[in-house]
Amino acid sequence: MPKIIDHEQRRHDIALAACRAINRHGLDTVTLAQIAREAGSTTGMLAHYFDTKWDVILAALRLMHDRLESRMAKRIASQDGNLTELLADTLPIGSERRAEAAAWLTFWGSALKHPELLEMTKKTHADWRAIVARCVAQNHPSSGTWTTAVRDEVVSSIVMFMDGLSVKGLTRAEQYPPRQLRKLLENHLQRLLAWADEQV
Amino acid sequence: MPKIIDHEQRRHDIALAACRAINRHGLDTVTLAQIAREAGSTTGMLAHYFDTKWDVILAALRLMHDRLESRMAKRIASQDGNLTELLADTLPIGSERRAEAAAWLTFWGSALKHPELLEMTKKTHADWRAIVARCVAQNHPSSGTWTTAVRDEVVSSIVMFMDGLSVKGLTRAEQYPPRQLRKLLENHLQRLLAWADEQV
Repeated sequence: MPKIIDHEQRRHDIALAACRAINRHGLDTVTLAQIAREAGSTTGMLAHYFDTKWDVILAALRLMHDRLESRMAKRIASQDGNLTELLADTLPIGSERRAEAAAWLTFWGSALKHPELLEMTKKTHADWRAIVARCVAQNHPSSGTWTTAVRDEVVSSIVMFMDGLSVKGLTRAEQYPPRQLRKLLENHLQRLLAWADEQV
Repeated sequence: MPKIIDHEQRRHDIALAACRAINRHGLDTVTLAQIAREAGSTTGMLAHYFDTKWDVILAALRLMHDRLESRMAKRIASQDGNLTELLADTLPIGSERRAEAAAWLTFWGSALKHPELLEMTKKTHADWRAIVARCVAQNHPSSGTWTTAVRDEVVSSIVMFMDGLSVKGLTRAEQYPPRQLRKLLENHLQRLLAWADEQV
C-alpha cells in the first residue's frame, strides 16, 4: 500500500519552515536548501511542492498573514482590547512581530523589480483592508452610520499610517520605540474617527 | 605639472552615476562594475573614492536627499504651492520620483540585516524631519503658536503617513494612483493641522 501523504499539510509545514528560515537568514539571501533543511526535507522534495524559491516565500508570507488574520479574528470575537491595542498587535513590537514586518519590508523592496510577485500579494492586501475595516466596525459602533466613501477613507488612512509605523519601527527603532509607535497610532485613530463621525 | 583633480567633484559625479545605475539595475543587484561604467570609470578608480559598494550607495542616497532638500528649499522660498503640493513632490509620482522612492524602499529592506547602514542614514532622517517642519511652518502660520510637543506630533504623523503613501504608491500602484495618494495626503494634513490648532 502506498504511503498516504497529506499534500496540503506538507505545503503548510514547508511554508512554516520557510518563515523560520526567512527570519534566520533574511528574505533576500535565504536559499531553497536552507528552507529544506529547516523543514527536515531536501531541495528535491521541496521542488515537488513549489516551483521556485519565490513560490515558497509567497506561501510563507501568505501563511504569516493567515495567522495574523485568525489571531485578530479571535481577539475581535472575544472583544479583547480596544482599536489601538488590536491594530498595534501587527506593529513590529517584539521579536516575532519584528520578523514578520521585516519579511514584508524586504519582500516589498525586492519585489519592486518583479511586478508579478506584487500581483500575487494583491489578495493579501485586500484581506488586510477587510481586517482593518472589521476592527473599526467592531470597536467603533457609530461607524455603522458612515458612508462608504468615509469608511474607505478611514481604512486607507489607517493602512497608510500603519505601513509608516512599520517602516520606522524597523529602520529607526531607537527613535520610534514601541511606546511611541502605539501613541502615534492612538492619536491618529482618535483624529480620524472623530473626523469620520462628523461627516454624517 | 601634475593633473589637478577635484576629489569632491569626482565623488559627487560617482554618486550621481550610482543613482542612475541603481535606477537601471536595482539597488540590491547593482554591481560596482556597473556603477563604474555609468561613471565612465573603472572599479579600480572607484575604489580610490569608496571602500565598498554600500559606501557608494549611501553616497547616492545622500545625494538624492540633498537634491530633494534643495528642490524643496527653493519652492518654500518662492512660496510655490501649498503644503500638500510641496510634500506630494516627494511621493512616488512620475518616473524620477518613483526611482528615488524605490531606491529607499529597497535600501530599507536590504539594510535591516545591516544595522550599521541604517545608522549611517540617521542624519538623513533628521534632515527629512527638519524639511517637513519647515514646510509646515511656512505654509501654516498659526503653527507658530503650537507647543513643541504638538509640533513634534505633527511632524511624526506626516513622516509616518508619507512613508505609507510611498510604500503603497510603489507596491500597489494600480490601487493607489497619484490622484488618490495626493487626496489621502491632503485629507490627512487637514485633519492633523485642525487638531494641532485646537491644542493651543
